[in-house]
Amino acid sequence: MMTVIKGEMLYEGKAKKVFLTDRDDQYIVEFKDDATAFNGEKRGKIADKGHLNNEISTIFFRMLEEKGIPTHFIDRLSEREMLVKKVTIVPLEVVVRNIAAGSLAKRLGLEEGTVLPKTVVEFYYKDDSLGDPLVNPSHIDVLELATAEQVSTMEQYGRKINEIMKDYLKDKNVILVDFKLEFGIDTQGNLILADEISPDTCRFWDAETKEKLDKDRFRRDLGSVEEAYQEILRRLGGTVS
Amino acid sequence: MMTVIKGEMLYEGKAKKVFLTDRDDQYIVEFKDDATAFNGEKRGKIADKGHLNNEISTIFFRMLEEKGIPTHFIDRLSEREMLVKKVTIVPLEVVVRNIAAGSLAKRLGLEEGTVLPKTVVEFYYKDDSLGDPLVNPSHIDVLELATAEQVSTMEQYGRKINEIMKDYLKDKNVILVDFKLEFGIDTQGNLILADEISPDTCRFWDAETKEKLDKDRFRRDLGSVEEAYQEILRRLGGTVS
Ligand SMILES: Nc1ncnc2c1ncn2[C@@H]1O[C@H](COP(=O)(O)OP(=O)(O)O)[C@@H](O)[C@H]1O
Ligand SMILES: Nc1ncnc2c1ncn2[C@@H]1O[C@H](COP(=O)(O)OP(=O)(O)O)[C@@H](O)[C@H]1O
Ligand SMILES: [Mg+2]
Ligand SMILES: [Mg+2]
Repeated sequence: MMTVIKGEMLYEGKAKKVFLTDRDDQYIVEFKDDATAFNGEKRGKIADKGHLNNEISTIFFRMLEEKGIPTHFIDRLSEREMLVKKVTIVPLEVVVRNIAAGSLAKRLGLEEGTVLPKTVVEFYYKDDSLGDPLVNPSHIDVLELATAEQVSTMEQYGRKINEIMKDYLKDKNVILVDFKLEFGIDTQGNLILADEISPDTCRFWDAETKEKLDKDRFRRDLGSVEEAYQEILRRLGGTVS
Repeated sequence: MMTVIKGEMLYEGKAKKVFLTDRDDQYIVEFKDDATAFNGEKRGKIADKGHLNNEISTIFFRMLEEKGIPTHFIDRLSEREMLVKKVTIVPLEVVVRNIAAGSLAKRLGLEEGTVLPKTVVEFYYKDDSLGDPLVNPSHIDVLELATAEQVSTMEQYGRKINEIMKDYLKDKNVILVDFKLEFGIDTQGNLILADEISPDTCRFWDAETKEKLDKDRFRRDLGSVEEAYQEILRRLGGTVS
């Protein structure tokens, strides 16, 4: 691959920086160690997280592409850098759940750990100032966040990605509790999976001990946060330096 | 109509009492003056509300039945009593909105009074201990609150009732901002409209002055609460005693 030149920073989010490149349709995403929770109220750093999440996301995106899911992933460039397709992010977080945890357990009054008899798919409006509220198709329609067709496609991709990931993680002794996806429209007009797939955006539990191997260790001050991220990378077949 | 005998009280809610009758498939609903808001945090009484809401609901149910909407309404029995079909209430509040107000304005960051370009339909899980949370079809499915077909029927009825009521209220110089419906399954297995339609469950604004003529006067301590309910009854053609 011809060397890609990193341009100026386009924007900085809570977990990543996005840079222009010398190519019209490609960005470089740089993964940071910063960790936030509860809509930015809790802030901190997780040592080496940027590196670990770049590795972990790379493994997931490659695996999903192989299974036919279109993603923004092009290449892993360095420890913390990923080359991606430039997209216009759909301002919706698509959450897929297999087991009750976090806000779902609270919303529906279910005990954390309750196996859901059906997969739950939720859309949240990606707006920090509103606290990322749950929205339904008529809200999405009123705010023109996505078309009804895009909503249906994102839900279908979400369910398919769930099946692929659950299956893939079963062999690794990891339970996929829930996860958050972001989609975007690429320069060709295609709806593709973007952002990241990492312990920041998924709940992973050890299949035997039910130990949390994800950002809940940070959210709830459970300790061994970096170790959990490393453990996930190890189970996915990656090398922890 | 043969006299119906009022039996023992089956349950008492925040705004109504429900009584058994000597008929297997009929209940008597008694409208109370009690008013609550913010999930029961604010409590009070609105003078004569029970009477006014019984009259107002009677007018709306009769009008909707004429337009082909199946409701639980059978007859108005007295100032505060309504004879209804016994139903098993579907534990969902169906909210239909034309103008942003209340929790929608907050959720989506819209100014109160913003005319919605599309009708919004929402489902809330009727559970006081959870604070009546917004739910989507996959939540409803997981909790088995209603079948997908029932959800779709309730949404369709909600939209149709909205059109009928908007139209009906236009002549009365009243803007229908939003309203909440409850449905139930009658002894024949039919999904029908139940509960009440009143200034407790609708937001009504005067078409010219945009003055609030509903429970928001109580929620926000705007005064002239009883007068607003009376004004609605008057505009619907009822007589205020
Ligand atoms: N392929 C892409 N093209 C453009 N923007 C992207 C792409 N992938 C992710 N983003 C966006 O990059 C931003 C930075 O990511 P992040 O730090 O996770 O932000 P946030 O604080 O919103 O969670 C986010 O707005 C995310 O949606
Ligand atoms: N036709 C009916 N058959 C049985 N229950 C009904 C019927 N119509 C309304 N109800 C129920 O009567 C109860 C009392 O009403 P209300 O005081 O408004 O209760 P809440 O405190 O739940 O708002 C509610 O649970 C309502 O759903
Ligand atoms: Mg993010
Ligand atoms: Mg009620």
